[in-house]
This record gives sequence, C-alpha cells and structure tokens, in this order.
Amino acid sequence: MQNTFLHHVFFWLNNPNSIADKQSLIEGLKKLSAVTTIKTFHIGQPADTNRDVIERGYAISWFVQFANAADQASYQTDPIHLKFVETCKHLWSKVIVYDSVDA
Amino acid sequence: MQNTFLHHVFFWLNNPNSIADKQSLIEGLKKLSAVTTIKTFHIGQPADTNRDVIERGYAISWFVQFANAADQASYQTDPIHLKFVETCKHLWSKVIVYDSVDA
Repeated sequence: MQNTFLHHVFFWLNNPNSIADKQSLIEGLKKLSAVTTIKTFHIGQPADTNRDVIERGYAISWFVQFANAADQASYQTDPIHLKFVETCKHLWSKVIVYDSVDA
Repeated sequence: MQNTFLHHVFFWLNNPNSIADKQSLIEGLKKLSAVTTIKTFHIGQPADTNRDVIERGYAISWFVQFANAADQASYQTDPIHLKFVETCKHLWSKVIVYDSVDA
C-alpha cells in the first residue's frame, strides 16, 4: 500500500468484561464504516499472540484506510462519525490513535 | 477487510533525530516485505494530525496484513524476518505491536 493514510484506533472499554458493551461498540463501528471517504476498514480484537512487545489490553481495534489526509480530516467531522462518538463514547475508557502516512 | 490478521508495529529509534537511522530501518522493512506470507504492507511515519489521543512519538509504522494467524506465525520465524531483526535491532529503542483478528 502506498499513497495512503492509515488511521488505527484502539479502544479500551469501561467495562472490559461486558460482552454487551463490546458488541455495542462493534455495532457502532459497523455503522461508522458507512462514511464514504473510507477506502477499507477492519474491526478487530486482540489475536492470540502473546509476547512482551505485544499490546493486548485493548478490547477493539478499528483500522481505516483513507486515500489521503484530507479524506481523514473530512471523516472526523462527518455527521456519521459525530453520531458514532455521541452514541458510543460512554463505552470506552481509553483510546489510542495512530495516524500514519507513507514514510 | 475480513478473515484477516493485522500485524501493526510501531518503532521508536535510539537516535530519533538520525535521518540515516530512519532510512536504514525503512530499507530493512522494504527487504522484510519480501516474506511471501505477507498479503499487503505499508511503511509509514506519523501523519500531521495532532490531538490528545494520537500517539505520534514513534518514528516508523510497519503495517502488515496476513491471511491468518498461521501465516503471521510463519513470518516470525521466516529467515528474512530473522535477518531483518539481526540487521536492524540496534536501530530501535522501543517497539509496540498490535496483532488483531476479526472481532
């Protein structure tokens, strides 16, 4: 992949053991995936891998590929994204975002 | 993307201001991308975005998509990967890995 903008978000839940809360976040992300500037996306959870360098405390991974920085900026203010934050923000306790462009 | 395994690695450099070291790591990752189980990959650096939740202290992002967990496990012991670690490990001070599968 080149000429692209990767936006990778990791969510920690307020109630890490709540299957219902995790499912609510997944459903919210599925709706969020309708934003038209999104090229590809993936809704994930930690794999079974386990080494010292691996961070596996998060509940949900939200990976999005955009064509460029402008499309990512547009996504941030898209009504669908604002609605997602409003609907789901009570679910998470921590979010870490990694935005990367071609090196 | 579904039925996939995302392996996302973030590297912090021992010499964060060394353009040469950063370039050496990029060259090492380009060679590493020859591992045959890799479906897609991206070599990145922090975007210009800057919010509280965004981690932008790393130097290089290495994103790899595998078909499944077995292919990622195979990559870990692939001679090309072992050679990469041997050649480049002096360059980094910290590594964080996020491995995720379909939620």
